[in-house]
Amino acid sequence: MGKILLKSVLMQNAGESPARKDVLIDGNVFSKIVDTSTPEMADGTEIIDCKNFALVPAFYNGHTHAAMSLLRGYADDMDLSKWLNEYIWPFEAKLTDRDIEIGSRLAVLEMIKSGTVFFSDMYWHREQTMKVVEEMGIRASIGVTISDVLVSPEGLKANFDFLARHTGESERVKLAVMPHSIYIVSEEYLRRSMEMAEKENYPLHIHLSETEKEIRDCLEQHGCTPVEYLQRLGCLNSRVQAAHCVHFSEKDMEIFAQSGASAILNPNSNLKLSSGIPSIVKMMDRRIPLGLGTDGDSSNNNLDMHEEMKLAALLAKVQGGADVLPASEALKMASVNVAQVNGINAGIIAEGKLADGILVRLDNERMVPCFDLVGNWVYSADSRAIDSVLCNGRFVMRGGHVDGEEDIVREAGECALRLAENK
Amino acid sequence: MGKILLKSVLMQNAGESPARKDVLIDGNVFSKIVDTSTPEMADGTEIIDCKNFALVPAFYNGHTHAAMSLLRGYADDMDLSKWLNEYIWPFEAKLTDRDIEIGSRLAVLEMIKSGTVFFSDMYWHREQTMKVVEEMGIRASIGVTISDVLVSPEGLKANFDFLARHTGESERVKLAVMPHSIYIVSEEYLRRSMEMAEKENYPLHIHLSETEKEIRDCLEQHGCTPVEYLQRLGCLNSRVQAAHCVHFSEKDMEIFAQSGASAILNPNSNLKLSSGIPSIVKMMDRRIPLGLGTDGDSSNNNLDMHEEMKLAALLAKVQGGADVLPASEALKMASVNVAQVNGINAGIIAEGKLADGILVRLDNERMVPCFDLVGNWVYSADSRAIDSVLCNGRFVMRGGHVDGEEDIVREAGECALRLAENK
Repeated sequence: MGKILLKSVLMQNAGESPARKDVLIDGNVFSKIVDTSTPEMADGTEIIDCKNFALVPAFYNGHTHAAMSLLRGYADDMDLSKWLNEYIWPFEAKLTDRDIEIGSRLAVLEMIKSGTVFFSDMYWHREQTMKVVEEMGIRASIGVTISDVLVSPEGLKANFDFLARHTGESERVKLAVMPHSIYIVSEEYLRRSMEMAEKENYPLHIHLSETEKEIRDCLEQHGCTPVEYLQRLGCLNSRVQAAHCVHFSEKDMEIFAQSGASAILNPNSNLKLSSGIPSIVKMMDRRIPLGLGTDGDSSNNNLDMHEEMKLAALLAKVQGGADVLPASEALKMASVNVAQVNGINAGIIAEGKLADGILVRLDNERMVPCFDLVGNWVYSADSRAIDSVLCNGRFVMRGGHVDGEEDIVREAGECALRLAENK
Repeated sequence: MGKILLKSVLMQNAGESPARKDVLIDGNVFSKIVDTSTPEMADGTEIIDCKNFALVPAFYNGHTHAAMSLLRGYADDMDLSKWLNEYIWPFEAKLTDRDIEIGSRLAVLEMIKSGTVFFSDMYWHREQTMKVVEEMGIRASIGVTISDVLVSPEGLKANFDFLARHTGESERVKLAVMPHSIYIVSEEYLRRSMEMAEKENYPLHIHLSETEKEIRDCLEQHGCTPVEYLQRLGCLNSRVQAAHCVHFSEKDMEIFAQSGASAILNPNSNLKLSSGIPSIVKMMDRRIPLGLGTDGDSSNNNLDMHEEMKLAALLAKVQGGADVLPASEALKMASVNVAQVNGINAGIIAEGKLADGILVRLDNERMVPCFDLVGNWVYSADSRAIDSVLCNGRFVMRGGHVDGEEDIVREAGECALRLAENK
């Protein structure tokens, strides 16, 4: 892989001042970041004039269901239980390996177009999604989904074998143990999930305290909240990534904070499905590690981390004051925080870090005037300001274009239509 | 002006099913909408192949301060009073006619790029903004801002004279009486504003019940809420457009609903400045006419009506349930509702209506699959899906490009820098 020099780019990390730099990418890392006085190089380095671009951290999507892109708009504006039982689950039951491949490709395209280079995925037919991620050049933590309600005993055994062998893991694609939730995973399988995560050093990723119903049912069944229940089972520690975390009691927050687990918030989905508004400020006050995710296309209805970032900042402000969760902190929640909990040495533009990033057009009308580059990026821009996206030292989007995107979109449209007609 | 035929476009109004149509634009109206079997025309009509586009209503921005685009990012993440007193007002005091022209041009560009063809503007140096709107081809309701705290007696007299003469009004540019708010306009001038609005048939546009402080101060000073106060003064009727409306009591809502006044909600701004969350569902239940606006670039920090539309829908759902404020209703709040209260015969794609609309790319990855075109547009897309924007029968953006946009962006950047250095 050749070297790339981002010449005279306006580098912007969260919490730092922007600075014009020459950024050299060698292999898959930022190898050198210097003042813009680099002499011309004659060693075959590709030199890109970046006067017109800011280089900002890429997005890391902490929680999604990628292939549900095929269900975008299939069932909107209805409550969660009707949505799942009458629409989503019957549709999903029809999905083949090939459909999942097509849906994953649409999702990865959508993420790249909006600046995301990593996603943590909880879904089915995982090998198709892994293949697509490998091909399209980004990163993922692919969940092996555990549920003894939805998966047969043979399926569960195969899942644990898959994890024990670290099947298909690579530089960019990792696995994670993903017991779906406390309501469709038994005590036994929650414990076995944690044992596997501990033994093989995987993250444990779970839906947690998403709806009031989940809390009510748990209180009825186990006499405690979902957070207390996980703690009681020994399933709450620093390798846990809990998605949603909308309905935490004060005591839940104390327990969660002490455990070192991370909360992955999905504000668009939580509002849209009327699940509730997460207590962002209270969680921040207790120093709970916070990241953001989009949830799936059928509940959001997109995979745009920029929207999550802005909405998280806005909700925090209306909860705690206009000065709470400033732009730079919101950017961290959408980037480095998620990278960190997934063990990815990225999310900051710095020498030695993996070369992931977004080139943002400084002449986009929403990036002007440039009093506050991070503020413009977080509060004003949308994905139209993104020119190019780097992952692992190579361009996965360049000049607004992703290789093969027209085919990906066409195929996904045809596939979804076929599935819908086939009901 | 020649005729334009949008050939085989997927027409989508809020609340209707999408349909492939040939849409003929003659002059400034949609003159004929027929099934896609129109014979080729030889009368010089420009025929545009729209197989790949949906035609959706354009956005109408119900409340903004356009030239504040120059203050984007100048002061973020702080409370309203510090923001106004220490940053915004001192900066604004330096603005010249020329600055306002440059700032208005950036704002109009930003609105066109995100599909907005009308804005209701409350600001200063109004003639510069009027000139820019005329030039750039969109519509506006330009406020003559009334405040006897901020404006001298001579200035106020000039303002009322300006209104009495309908100075500068045209086909696309109208005036409105805009007493700023109950806290910087006296009883006398609130009454005189309403008299002028009644006499000359203007809308009366006012900031109302935006913050808790406004409510507290009003209770202290007048012994009633801002809504009750306006009612008492005879300043609350169907020609009133009240911006924000965040803190309405139950009684306020009753009074407001009976008055026929419209509420123009600005959810992004209200959250970002920590003003509060408007009671969207309660206002809907009382059938208060609701429209959306962006507020200014310095508090939002953009003029993208799409964001307001999605956020309004999401907030309504978390208040009232996932089935509340479906996509088509949210679209109406961002389009036809605002057009209607401003007396513009547009916001719906129909024969005889003014030819305003957005061509949305159906091959944008977020518009696929197409189970629900309105849902995709409202919940999934962002401004990148917009190909072209029509206003009054002509393209103000075409193929993603607005005439002169590079110069507008450059000039605005330079102007803001000059102003900031000049402090």
